[in-house]
Amino acid sequence: MEIPTINDVLRAANIIERYAIKTPVLVSHSINNIFNSDIYFKCENFQKVGAFKFRGACNAVFSLPDSEIKSGVATHSSGNHAQALALAAKLRGTKAFIVMPENSTKVKVKAVEGYGAEIVFCKPTLEARETALNEVVERTGAKFIHPYNNFNVIAGQGTAALELINEVKDLDYIITPVGGGGLLSGTLISTSSLSQNTKVIAAEPEGADDAYRSIREGKIIPSINPNTIADGLLTSLGELNFDIIRKHIYKIITVSDDAIISAMRLIWERMKIIVEPSSAITLGILLENKIDLSGKKIGIILSGGNVDLDSLPWMSKKVLG
Amino acid sequence: MEIPTINDVLRAANIIERYAIKTPVLVSHSINNIFNSDIYFKCENFQKVGAFKFRGACNAVFSLPDSEIKSGVATHSSGNHAQALALAAKLRGTKAFIVMPENSTKVKVKAVEGYGAEIVFCKPTLEARETALNEVVERTGAKFIHPYNNFNVIAGQGTAALELINEVKDLDYIITPVGGGGLLSGTLISTSSLSQNTKVIAAEPEGADDAYRSIREGKIIPSINPNTIADGLLTSLGELNFDIIRKHIYKIITVSDDAIISAMRLIWERMKIIVEPSSAITLGILLENKIDLSGKKIGIILSGGNVDLDSLPWMSKKVLG
Repeated sequence: MEIPTINDVLRAANIIERYAIKTPVLVSHSINNIFNSDIYFKCENFQKVGAFKFRGACNAVFSLPDSEIKSGVATHSSGNHAQALALAAKLRGTKAFIVMPENSTKVKVKAVEGYGAEIVFCKPTLEARETALNEVVERTGAKFIHPYNNFNVIAGQGTAALELINEVKDLDYIITPVGGGGLLSGTLISTSSLSQNTKVIAAEPEGADDAYRSIREGKIIPSINPNTIADGLLTSLGELNFDIIRKHIYKIITVSDDAIISAMRLIWERMKIIVEPSSAITLGILLENKIDLSGKKIGIILSGGNVDLDSLPWMSKKVLG
Repeated sequence: MEIPTINDVLRAANIIERYAIKTPVLVSHSINNIFNSDIYFKCENFQKVGAFKFRGACNAVFSLPDSEIKSGVATHSSGNHAQALALAAKLRGTKAFIVMPENSTKVKVKAVEGYGAEIVFCKPTLEARETALNEVVERTGAKFIHPYNNFNVIAGQGTAALELINEVKDLDYIITPVGGGGLLSGTLISTSSLSQNTKVIAAEPEGADDAYRSIREGKIIPSINPNTIADGLLTSLGELNFDIIRKHIYKIITVSDDAIISAMRLIWERMKIIVEPSSAITLGILLENKIDLSGKKIGIILSGGNVDLDSLPWMSKKVLG
């Protein structure tokens, strides 16, 4: 399989420039004081559809020639990639078909419908999802855009780190979450090429530590029965993502759900911005202090801000002091 | 009484520059689409202590000569002004004495203590509060800094609008909340002098509409038994504030609590930023559509973001569709 390079990320930056938001980098003196570090938060929660996912979906949809895209695009996702692909397709003037499990929350279904996508419901199993997707692709001729194991998606996700390292020089570390590995692999391409002294750390939930185990064992370990509040980080690594991660990653560090929730609340309270658990996990690494980052210059990619405001995790879970 | 002019605001901008955050102006395409307007949000929720109040307190504390400030500063407040004055005093290297009602929430008490201020508790009545403040001033020799009816506080609050109109030209309207009138009167000084075609609208809770009635009747009507979710907007106008508001205001518009809560949730969901009810009331004006602002270029000052994350208004209140 062909692996994207920095040139693909630079091309993606050019393509998505008209559609994506160049998100701000925020600094919190109060959080810097707590951790005795110099932290720069790249706010992808302010991105279109509320998550970095729009970068990859947008690049994928606009990189394809008309001939490949005229029957639309399709994917399976109940999360941010679904909304991202729906919006990108709308902007390109083509259709999006989204396979979603029939137990998806109304909020998520409405959000995807709001961007004009056609939803195909399936039973909530991996097998049913893949069958439904294949049927959709066969019926409509739509092009399948995988949420993360996709060349153009990875190149698109790499633009977040590209913007960050262009804006903040000489970072010692960049921390991203890792689920399927789209954001992480894109970040690694940009960073290993343009900021070689910056080490990339990935944060992964303790209850969904398949990437951590995959790197340790040198092969993709599937994510089976993951259990974590970070609902964007449940999936297994893709093959393309794994190849890139294995080559360039400095460290994957697992984080407990308690630390994820505490980090989320800390960001909400001190920075007055809304991030989802799958984003806050990055700061969870500093809270749990599993690696000494004091005195360091750290970039953190806050991946998204889509949360259900009627059910916040500290309402039901006990939170770390 | 002497009324601050634009020169006092410009001097304040100079004084607070080293300490206050030049807060970002954010745009939400999604909210612009809803209201068919061009809205620029000045994010004072990102200000130090989480509210514009730091501007005024900082200017007041740093404008005074050493001789007047050496025994500290004092005020009565259970809200954002208390934290703001405490932090400003700390930065100046002097003491802050804060009179707070004994039923203040622990969160607020801890926040003020966190900035090193000395808290004096009193019974939760206006009379007890004034008595306690007088005793503190007599005992300590501290200088009383009123939360809004104060020359330097007003000049400091005017710097938020100053930054906004320097960054965004040709605004048709600026909307601020009105409680005691500090932010509103400062905004009016900056706007009437530097952006004369911009009309300033104030948003006031229906259940605390004393400023609306004061302007209508041409004299200060005290705020008696106010009842609103916007807990930063309960107080009566100050005399200085009233004189400035009366001279320059375009309109005061009252907003229902339901609209305040809906506007707050809309900002949280679409902009991924945390604002308090007393800030969200500004967008509530557009939600209730009591004035036609479609097609207009509007600056909104989001005054603060200090909310109790354990008790959000949509958990208990019915929210507008």
